[in-house]
Amino acid sequence: MPESWVNLAERIGSDLHVELSGPGSRRAVLIRALRDAVRAGRLAPGTRLPPYRSLAADLGLARNTVADAYAELVAEGWLTARQGSGTRVATGISSGGRAADAGRRPKPAPARPAAPAHDLRQGTPDATSFPRTAWLAAARRALAAAPAEAFGPGDPRGRVELRRALADYLARVRGVRTDPERIVVCSGFAHALRLLFGGTHGAGGGVLRGPFAVESYGLGFHRGILAGAGVRTVPLALDEQGAQVAGLTGGPRVRGALLTPAHQFPTGGPLHPTRRTAAVEWARTTGGLLLEDDYDGEFRYDREPVGAVQGLDPERVVYLGSVSKSLSPAVRIGWMVLPGHLVDGVLAAKGEREAWAGVLDQLTLADLIASGQYDRHVRRMRQRYRRRRDRLVDALAERAPHITVTGIAAGLHAVLRLPPGTEASAVKAAAWQGVALEGLAGFRHPGATMPAEDGLVVGYSTPSEHAYGAAVEALLRCLPPADGPDHDGTGREK
Amino acid sequence: MPESWVNLAERIGSDLHVELSGPGSRRAVLIRALRDAVRAGRLAPGTRLPPYRSLAADLGLARNTVADAYAELVAEGWLTARQGSGTRVATGISSGGRAADAGRRPKPAPARPAAPAHDLRQGTPDATSFPRTAWLAAARRALAAAPAEAFGPGDPRGRVELRRALADYLARVRGVRTDPERIVVCSGFAHALRLLFGGTHGAGGGVLRGPFAVESYGLGFHRGILAGAGVRTVPLALDEQGAQVAGLTGGPRVRGALLTPAHQFPTGGPLHPTRRTAAVEWARTTGGLLLEDDYDGEFRYDREPVGAVQGLDPERVVYLGSVSKSLSPAVRIGWMVLPGHLVDGVLAAKGEREAWAGVLDQLTLADLIASGQYDRHVRRMRQRYRRRRDRLVDALAERAPHITVTGIAAGLHAVLRLPPGTEASAVKAAAWQGVALEGLAGFRHPGATMPAEDGLVVGYSTPSEHAYGAAVEALLRCLPPADGPDHDGTGREK
Repeated sequence: MPESWVNLAERIGSDLHVELSGPGSRRAVLIRALRDAVRAGRLAPGTRLPPYRSLAADLGLARNTVADAYAELVAEGWLTARQGSGTRVATGISSGGRAADAGRRPKPAPARPAAPAHDLRQGTPDATSFPRTAWLAAARRALAAAPAEAFGPGDPRGRVELRRALADYLARVRGVRTDPERIVVCSGFAHALRLLFGGTHGAGGGVLRGPFAVESYGLGFHRGILAGAGVRTVPLALDEQGAQVAGLTGGPRVRGALLTPAHQFPTGGPLHPTRRTAAVEWARTTGGLLLEDDYDGEFRYDREPVGAVQGLDPERVVYLGSVSKSLSPAVRIGWMVLPGHLVDGVLAAKGEREAWAGVLDQLTLADLIASGQYDRHVRRMRQRYRRRRDRLVDALAERAPHITVTGIAAGLHAVLRLPPGTEASAVKAAAWQGVALEGLAGFRHPGATMPAEDGLVVGYSTPSEHAYGAAVEALLRCLPPADGPDHDGTGREK
Repeated sequence: MPESWVNLAERIGSDLHVELSGPGSRRAVLIRALRDAVRAGRLAPGTRLPPYRSLAADLGLARNTVADAYAELVAEGWLTARQGSGTRVATGISSGGRAADAGRRPKPAPARPAAPAHDLRQGTPDATSFPRTAWLAAARRALAAAPAEAFGPGDPRGRVELRRALADYLARVRGVRTDPERIVVCSGFAHALRLLFGGTHGAGGGVLRGPFAVESYGLGFHRGILAGAGVRTVPLALDEQGAQVAGLTGGPRVRGALLTPAHQFPTGGPLHPTRRTAAVEWARTTGGLLLEDDYDGEFRYDREPVGAVQGLDPERVVYLGSVSKSLSPAVRIGWMVLPGHLVDGVLAAKGEREAWAGVLDQLTLADLIASGQYDRHVRRMRQRYRRRRDRLVDALAERAPHITVTGIAAGLHAVLRLPPGTEASAVKAAAWQGVALEGLAGFRHPGATMPAEDGLVVGYSTPSEHAYGAAVEALLRCLPPADGPDHDGTGREK
């Protein structure tokens, strides 16, 4: 074994052999041991690891076990894998935990995985495109115009300037019917869910009760917030027309449904008009409530935006939005458009004074919207994302025509449909290629009964403009070939 | 009864007589009925109410009951009382709730009481003094310098630029010993408490367990957050040296203590050096934890600032601060300086990504601190508040020499000590004079066993510069005279 390779079995800890012979998954034991060794500094950043074949032989493990462990740690950001350079400990990780005070120091583990070479995860707009100049100009106007009381304790509804601007904007762009008195500003979608459902420890929060229907594919983070509030979620099956809302009456009794009508997340279709009216009709007749997550409703490419369901019945739908996709998740501003009967409860949950959304950001955003700059920015980004989408679709049509792409009429991500059984290996292959992305499996409700679908969720908004081409190239290398489902891109033996 | 007076008994609802003859406090019934009548628009803004004597006769109630109800509603902002103009429905209240859809519309009650003529409530800096120019200049520099990743998903620790600036600043100004890795940014003090103890607004929530000691006088809002997280609070008695920390060992077993060492809130003294070391010693020997609420530590007038207790043992003290007093509660930025062993838990409670504190505010504040502009602003405000304090103390010395003022070496408020039994009527008199302020009773822990103290908590930072003189004049009119405790300033018979 060359000098440049670490004698890993030794470095990662003397107990490893013992642990590997104990109960539990050997893969999991190996992953934990490697992670601990990096964290504790026993494996320094940049260290080259032995090929998985060598380590497997050293440890008496199956080659696949070690290859899987490497791929997992690459995906988590602890290791990097580059063609020609082997597998190394990521350099973004600060080591620590040595010496006597190890127990007292914060663990220096990375708060998030080190950035992969190509970030195709969904959910984040292009950070290089934040409209700095327009934002600063709006901030200047907002600061000059703000009355002194804006710098005192804030109304928990949020600034009236912003609520007025939102009421106009949402009516114009999304067909939302409301007035500023029914809008409550918050710090984002998750905050809105917490205000609506309450949190882990009961007291104070929560104006809604469960059980609540959710889509069979969606963000586990959101389901987790509901679960944390003691709200059971009941999965609705999906098809080409979106959520099968007939399940609201046919299935277990629920008090409401959390839906993504404009662009089902993550599979990508809009909720069919008949489903929309059926959902609202269900809410009317049962006293139920719909939560409309309009997370990327502004980004529709192929025809006019699909309006908000809220417009069908403002008293039975809570409309939820934020600037996380349209501007940046760094601006912590979201909004809830509420039925009248929920306003007092949400305000009570929020507290007597504004304790969350910064007032300067609120005033600046209000100016950005009212001045038309927000529209302009959304328009520019829509064109840019549309070009990226087209580039992805074209590349796939040419080089991987056996892969179907769906969910591309709108939004910031596409779903690449894969042959059954190939998703997990494609995700691993992506990690191996330095491509960060997620498979559909990670979004599936654990209680979902509809057939599982294999697919890659490809966010095309995250890379900067100049990095996008290389990211698409890397993605193409991860896809299963047309001739079989076994290729996993890690270069290891079958 | 003149035409201009409302026949109140009729307007406020036909059931009032029935309710008044039922069980429960007549005062409370009357207050609720009046509030509802204003809210529902049956009593329009500006409507002049009958003198309390007339209404008492109409309703068959004791005059004091009605006078108390009026004073309470004035204090809440529903009514206004001006000398010579009688008692009227406040004009700041929008009425509503008429017509068929009353049940569906949000109640148009004011989110906060209408602004009183003179606001001497503690807790808010002068909103007219926000450093708009310096803030905008810092925002411009921060926006220009920010790396693109600042506009992507944020590290839940907060921006490193801000944590670096804070580590330097807090070391220099407050004697805090830390490094940027142990600082976690949040949206304010209440958010910090929720992250530490869990509760309705923080994800996951709660790295600390109760019971926890608190000071016998403090903010009920903070005690409420602990109670909401299921943490029992045990009151520590106070004396001239601050919290009697001997109670940490002598009293019921607690796991930690929430203290205001720089300037006991609200009574105003610093925690004595021997108490500081005793508290830290207690934490060391028992494994307990001190939470140091340094809410106004920068505003000390008569000598060098009293340093943070945290400097005595960074592993046993959580230091908590925010810009709510130094800049504005409109900027939702606070910070926790954590012992190493708590960092991971707090980050886990906060979530994988920054979902709370806006990144632009964080970057701007970092620049404001690093550029020295924050120091300059604090210095300017310290001089201004000190002048206001001197003006208050001088006015009292001259015109109400029987009133003792305490807690004036620091902070943004003073405590006017009153003869026993006079606080409630002084607070009522203040409401009658259009002066918003609070008595000590409102800050007392319900389980406190130390003798109750009578006093008014007078915030001198809230009014604008030009309004301060009139506020002090109005305050002087509310104080009990030297010759007896019965004066209550409402002008009603004794």
